[in-house]
Amino acid sequence: MTSIRVTVWNEFEHEKVHEQIRKVYPDGIHAVIADGLKKHGFTNVRTATLDQPEHGLTEAVLAETDVLTWWGHMAHRKVEDAIVDRVHRRVLEGMGLIVLHSGHHSKIFKKLMGTSCSLRWREAGEHERIWVVDPAHPIADGFGAYFELPEEEMYGEHFDIPDPDDLVFISWFPGGEVFRSGCTFHRGRGKIFYFRPGHETHPTYYHPDVQKVIANGVRWAAPTNGPAFTYGDGSAIHAKVPLEPITVK
Amino acid sequence: MTSIRVTVWNEFEHEKVHEQIRKVYPDGIHAVIADGLKKHGFTNVRTATLDQPEHGLTEAVLAETDVLTWWGHMAHRKVEDAIVDRVHRRVLEGMGLIVLHSGHHSKIFKKLMGTSCSLRWREAGEHERIWVVDPAHPIADGFGAYFELPEEEMYGEHFDIPDPDDLVFISWFPGGEVFRSGCTFHRGRGKIFYFRPGHETHPTYYHPDVQKVIANGVRWAAPTNGPAFTYGDGSAIHAKVPLEPITVK
Amino acid sequence: MTSIRVTVWNEFEHEKVHEQIRKVYPDGIHAVIADGLKKHGFTNVRTATLDQPEHGLTEAVLAETDVLTWWGHMAHRKVEDAIVDRVHRRVLEGMGLIVLHSGHHSKIFKKLMGTSCSLRWREAGEHERIWVVDPAHPIADGFGAYFELPEEEMYGEHFDIPDPDDLVFISWFPGGEVFRSGCTFHRGRGKIFYFRPGHETHPTYYHPDVQKVIANGVRWAAPTNGPAFTYGDGSAIHAKVPLEPITVK
Amino acid sequence: MTSIRVTVWNEFEHEKVHEQIRKVYPDGIHAVIADGLKKHGFTNVRTATLDQPEHGLTEAVLAETDVLTWWGHMAHRKVEDAIVDRVHRRVLEGMGLIVLHSGHHSKIFKKLMGTSCSLRWREAGEHERIWVVDPAHPIADGFGAYFELPEEEMYGEHFDIPDPDDLVFISWFPGGEVFRSGCTFHRGRGKIFYFRPGHETHPTYYHPDVQKVIANGVRWAAPTNGPAFTYGDGSAIHAKVPLEPITVK
Repeated sequence: MTSIRVTVWNEFEHEKVHEQIRKVYPDGIHAVIADGLKKHGFTNVRTATLDQPEHGLTEAVLAETDVLTWWGHMAHRKVEDAIVDRVHRRVLEGMGLIVLHSGHHSKIFKKLMGTSCSLRWREAGEHERIWVVDPAHPIADGFGAYFELPEEEMYGEHFDIPDPDDLVFISWFPGGEVFRSGCTFHRGRGKIFYFRPGHETHPTYYHPDVQKVIANGVRWAAPTNGPAFTYGDGSAIHAKVPLEPITVK
Repeated sequence: MTSIRVTVWNEFEHEKVHEQIRKVYPDGIHAVIADGLKKHGFTNVRTATLDQPEHGLTEAVLAETDVLTWWGHMAHRKVEDAIVDRVHRRVLEGMGLIVLHSGHHSKIFKKLMGTSCSLRWREAGEHERIWVVDPAHPIADGFGAYFELPEEEMYGEHFDIPDPDDLVFISWFPGGEVFRSGCTFHRGRGKIFYFRPGHETHPTYYHPDVQKVIANGVRWAAPTNGPAFTYGDGSAIHAKVPLEPITVK
Repeated sequence: MTSIRVTVWNEFEHEKVHEQIRKVYPDGIHAVIADGLKKHGFTNVRTATLDQPEHGLTEAVLAETDVLTWWGHMAHRKVEDAIVDRVHRRVLEGMGLIVLHSGHHSKIFKKLMGTSCSLRWREAGEHERIWVVDPAHPIADGFGAYFELPEEEMYGEHFDIPDPDDLVFISWFPGGEVFRSGCTFHRGRGKIFYFRPGHETHPTYYHPDVQKVIANGVRWAAPTNGPAFTYGDGSAIHAKVPLEPITVK
Repeated sequence: MTSIRVTVWNEFEHEKVHEQIRKVYPDGIHAVIADGLKKHGFTNVRTATLDQPEHGLTEAVLAETDVLTWWGHMAHRKVEDAIVDRVHRRVLEGMGLIVLHSGHHSKIFKKLMGTSCSLRWREAGEHERIWVVDPAHPIADGFGAYFELPEEEMYGEHFDIPDPDDLVFISWFPGGEVFRSGCTFHRGRGKIFYFRPGHETHPTYYHPDVQKVIANGVRWAAPTNGPAFTYGDGSAIHAKVPLEPITVK
């Protein structure tokens, strides 16, 4: 059991408009991600979706969120800039953020990374083998040398992100590509984990290994109580009085 | 001699409105930075300023720029977003960028870093001792264990940036602060170097050691001919035909 | 309360031969470090010293150790190579290691870093200000922008270590130096934290902030259950049977 | 043309005892690597082998070497520790080091990394696709998104090395593995580049792309004139006189 407060965000569009995807995720991708977290002992999990007022991410909700998970794809542009700025500020203030799959092109991820976050892709239902390259990392907890997913969209390099603070996973695809699939970043007081799998046409978020990675990621990204600065508004700290006596020349 | 094409950008505002600053930099900070580069063998150096059409950073100018240096302070908000986007795209495409001193709060640096880039500061004319912490780095070429500036503005931690790819310098200030003063970042195909010193009231850009660091930084940040992707517009690459035969299940 | 099993190692030489140091640490530095951990809820803490058989670090002891803390100074050369190799193997297998102060020149730290681990130093009882430069890091949990120690030995850059995976703290000293004081490293399945303060003539390990950092470090370095390889003996894994069908040409 | 002084080291054993390997490299692997460098404009290239006095790596030779390339496999244990220590000291002093293929298990690489440097392997003549993951890096100069080798030994993760300073290449193998194939490290004043390909039974070092990578690596690893410390013997610097006036309490 853990008291970490998680908000699972999903744009929740594919599931409404595509019959095939609704069959895989009848209650939305967010419902399955939330269920996976509950199986791993998280008792404080809520969901939020694009169609809610303020996309379900009000100041009040974010203030009570330790870690936010983000899934989006076809509707990145519908996410309001003001909400993106709000999430961005909360990450710099310490809220953890787990960005999933096609969330690589979300406004919030691109804003935090500073790059295009573009990549190579192919929808061919290939299987995927995910190798652990940092066995000391808590996000690799409970895994062997690799794990496999029977069918997924392919994402390949070059993935246009900053060099991750920790590179935890690299994926292999039968079509000939590789991908940095598990990447961590510190930004301000916040911790970010990008995890690759999760195309909407595949039952990826039901997979026990994927659920375990997300649970590990949420635990890793939960805030600690480091120094709090006013990062959100970008104001600098004027330290007019020095900490040591100085002689102005 | 080097054929690297450098554009030295300066907002060029303080020098016009403050008599005291004009005395230090009568032709603008950009003129002194450009002179320093010429002393180090750069023959292809131009300058650009905020008050020029498109801030002097037209598509044509940027297309002919290998490395752009950036100084701004009081007029960050006057820089048009469209020009910031243009510079951002060029960095991801491979143009080097040297961000100087108060440029830490420029739109372009914040956009590339994804954080607030805030810090602690004090104007007290303190001296500064800049320690080399990565003696293998080409930007430390020609330096001993440290170098000193007789008077500068203080910048202190916490400096809200991503963990640098390479941390080259750390500054010591008599008032009790430390600062990560020389930081490198790869973003897309571009290389970025942030260098701390350079407050407008001090003759910092005349200092031989500062000129040497900037020259080293420009050489380090010059583009190499790595793979070119279409990072600027964020479009992903659809690799419909796999590189290896795959069996769709 | 935590079930992490900690072994606090101390060479325990200064305290025996120098009256002045014995006054500061009458039962040895290890006793005070162990007490600090107990105050922070660690219930499974033992100590070990150089003069014990196998330096107190038998196979059995190490097998039951989740995190080892290391303090040594005047007797680095007396530590037997076989014991160093044993500790090294255990770190690669997953045991956490906290290296304290003059442990920077210990055989085990140099073997894990691959560099000389040399630095600049001065014994002048200067005060030290330790700045947090990674506020998202769990080792900075509970701290403000900085904390101070009233008297310490000075360590200054250049500190000849690999670029740390995470740089958590930077120290300021009145004599003009800076130092990367809190550094983390992943090696194999093990996590390593180097923490600078702790000269034997000063009561540093009684200081609440120092005790808090060490407690945070031990929690961070505790093993997780990532993939287990046979790193210790350096043997490679012969994957004779491929995971996918291949055509040998 | 470049004045960088390169010494190409090869254990030169396989080529003497295996007819099949001699057919691929009749004058030894070192001869082909040296030829590749000459094609790229290096005019100051010498070779050295295990069977020479002091393995051809006398103090005089190393003093005149800017970058050393290292190939070894079956005879790692025959390399004398005193020579390994000498090379190690020279790297910390600034000499560049390019470690090739099975050199991952050489004494010098393990000593510099501090880990087992073990990996997964298979000899099946698979083809290899090497993806560029850091297009800004000078070692990727002149490459597209990837390049391919028609036949090679497979190396797979987990590769037990420290997190590289820069990860330049990741390899894909048809048998299902991935590998961090191009990794850079700063150690002391020296720069190290590990490059994966080069099994003795395949004509890898004749391949234009491999020759280009090695040439790029040598240029990148060449020493710059940063601060020189006495890293080799591990002695610390006693800074008895402070740089600033201090008050001993």
